[in-house]
Amino acid sequence: MPLTYTIDAEFGPARRGHMQLPHAVVETPVFMPVGTAGSVKAVPQDVLESLGAQIILGNTYHLYLRPGHELIRRMRGLHRFISWPRAMLTDSGGFQVFSLNELRKVTADGVEFRSHLDGSSHLFTPERSVEIQIALGADIVMVFDECTEYPADHGRARKSLEITLAWAVRSKAYFDAHKHEVPWAADLPGRTQSLFGIVQGGMYADLRRESAERLVELDLPGYAIGGLSVGEPRHLTREVIESTLPHLPKAKPRYVMGVGYPEEIVEYAGMGVDMMDCVLPTRAARHGLLFTSEGRLNIRNRRFAEDQGPADPECGCMVCRRYTRAYLRHLTAAQEPLSMVLNTIHNLAYYLDLMKAVRDAIAIGTLPSLLARVRAVSREAAGDNTTVL
Amino acid sequence: MPLTYTIDAEFGPARRGHMQLPHAVVETPVFMPVGTAGSVKAVPQDVLESLGAQIILGNTYHLYLRPGHELIRRMRGLHRFISWPRAMLTDSGGFQVFSLNELRKVTADGVEFRSHLDGSSHLFTPERSVEIQIALGADIVMVFDECTEYPADHGRARKSLEITLAWAVRSKAYFDAHKHEVPWAADLPGRTQSLFGIVQGGMYADLRRESAERLVELDLPGYAIGGLSVGEPRHLTREVIESTLPHLPKAKPRYVMGVGYPEEIVEYAGMGVDMMDCVLPTRAARHGLLFTSEGRLNIRNRRFAEDQGPADPECGCMVCRRYTRAYLRHLTAAQEPLSMVLNTIHNLAYYLDLMKAVRDAIAIGTLPSLLARVRAVSREAAGDNTTVL
Repeated sequence: MPLTYTIDAEFGPARRGHMQLPHAVVETPVFMPVGTAGSVKAVPQDVLESLGAQIILGNTYHLYLRPGHELIRRMRGLHRFISWPRAMLTDSGGFQVFSLNELRKVTADGVEFRSHLDGSSHLFTPERSVEIQIALGADIVMVFDECTEYPADHGRARKSLEITLAWAVRSKAYFDAHKHEVPWAADLPGRTQSLFGIVQGGMYADLRRESAERLVELDLPGYAIGGLSVGEPRHLTREVIESTLPHLPKAKPRYVMGVGYPEEIVEYAGMGVDMMDCVLPTRAARHGLLFTSEGRLNIRNRRFAEDQGPADPECGCMVCRRYTRAYLRHLTAAQEPLSMVLNTIHNLAYYLDLMKAVRDAIAIGTLPSLLARVRAVSREAAGDNTTVL
Repeated sequence: MPLTYTIDAEFGPARRGHMQLPHAVVETPVFMPVGTAGSVKAVPQDVLESLGAQIILGNTYHLYLRPGHELIRRMRGLHRFISWPRAMLTDSGGFQVFSLNELRKVTADGVEFRSHLDGSSHLFTPERSVEIQIALGADIVMVFDECTEYPADHGRARKSLEITLAWAVRSKAYFDAHKHEVPWAADLPGRTQSLFGIVQGGMYADLRRESAERLVELDLPGYAIGGLSVGEPRHLTREVIESTLPHLPKAKPRYVMGVGYPEEIVEYAGMGVDMMDCVLPTRAARHGLLFTSEGRLNIRNRRFAEDQGPADPECGCMVCRRYTRAYLRHLTAAQEPLSMVLNTIHNLAYYLDLMKAVRDAIAIGTLPSLLARVRAVSREAAGDNTTVL
């Protein structure tokens, strides 16, 4: 049995719900920290648990190359390999090989690419991607898709969409034939992974609609909107999400891949998105960019050198309870490894607490004021000349 | 009042005791993790506390350059700046400027050196070093010394020894005149920092004896043996410690700087050493070298790729309770930041647990069997072709 999804409260198009997955129940809307190579960078798993991370991502491309999916299969799956008892999702590798640019070649069969580690040649097909994802054993797995580049004209976006649809059919066929091979099959009898479809179609509403409608015919347990965060302006991201959501089944979880800034994730949740992921809070942390209730702080800034306040006076995370901005500024300026650890913990606390506030706001009907608050500090932050990653 | 030191149990020349310092009581023999720039690299302070770290080191040279001792003074001292409520010790900067080689020039007045960060010129004198250490506010501070290089002939070692002795007198004079300026003076009334002397004299027993005897005349609250771990063979390190200890007062703490491997710290504690520090457990961890009850492991080794056991089956640390060698091997091979965090936590747990075992073994008279056990796995490890840092 794949996931079951239940709506618990609604506020306009937004919904609060929960997904029953093989390893855990996940409350939605949910933000999923990215753990590219089997680790949310610099953060131990017990800290992720204490921060309230419900589900984390793994990257098929990275884990296939190192340590290899066959090794992880022998270790009885990614959950056990990295000691993560809660839910996981793996992407299909489509976005990563798309990002390789010079190192890849797309054919009807799949994508040939060279490893960024050693230059070796590899082929990902829909079947291969799903085979790897079954070996990894995440609770949610993704169809292999072609992430359409931006900009792409209507003809190119249609062609790319057709590839993705054909690959979704092949992904599903392989998944249905092999899903019982997941390494934890015997430990969680009756449970299976859930294969999600991915809507493509560039920035064209008609193609997005067609992509969604044809994917829905496959009756998958959840749907993602892909091909965003590829360089388009933010208003286009929102328009694509807005025009696509009505064509996805209300009774199934809806996932927007690769977003976003705090004000974006609150807004998209308000539009009816249930799941989001982004490297932003973790990557920004490693560059010294902190998200706070007062806006974004570039903690390297000289003005924090003697600031004895916490990173965020409204945050109760272990970093804000113990350390000052002055200390975080010193650690970051001195490139101490602890700066990665502490900055990342705080940013994840901010994102995960914000998403909890979104769930509560949907239940009690206060989402507009929450969004207004987050937008207000975001505008102030925009005047702060912080690094945008 | 400087520290008070009490001997609680003896076993031959070894002693178990405790030091009452301004910020905490420290049980000895103690191993002190190194926190060069105000952070034990990659480990949050709450984890250091849970590992049982009683006292950590700060480096005067690094903290003077960044963020600057005047800033730390304004933050009311290093304890508050880094949020460390237990004991701290700062070195004098002598060893670090000694390590700069091409970038330094020793005169009778002090050492001129260039910053490794930006090439700017600086002068450390005994007075300046102690001034900086008072601003940092560690519980124990060190006289400014010249660390004699290895090899050095008898004439050169004597000359260096005379410089160190003259600098010790000047360090003490400055300290006595300014110790009330420590930033926490008002918070801990009646308490002062403790200034330790440093024995030099190269590898010559007669010079070490002379250095010790003349330093003891200064009646300092503790004494260190410096100028070791400078490239000499290990048997010389032991001989110097053995020939120097009898000339240091039994009623005061005795500190060997910059050692060592597990079998060394157990052996030296057995000879009557009370305090040791070394970058080895933390630096080795960042290179994937783990210390365990089964000897040293180079965790990058292919043979750990599918090893589902903990790093050390006899260790109860948070890393060994949760993660496998296979996962640590993957993280280290993939250069994930989490590998630094987890490997360092385990190595510190090993060192701190070992030192606790030493204290217990002194009290119950089982030190020889503990030393034999640690030596046995050290010999096995030596056949394991592990990296020696």
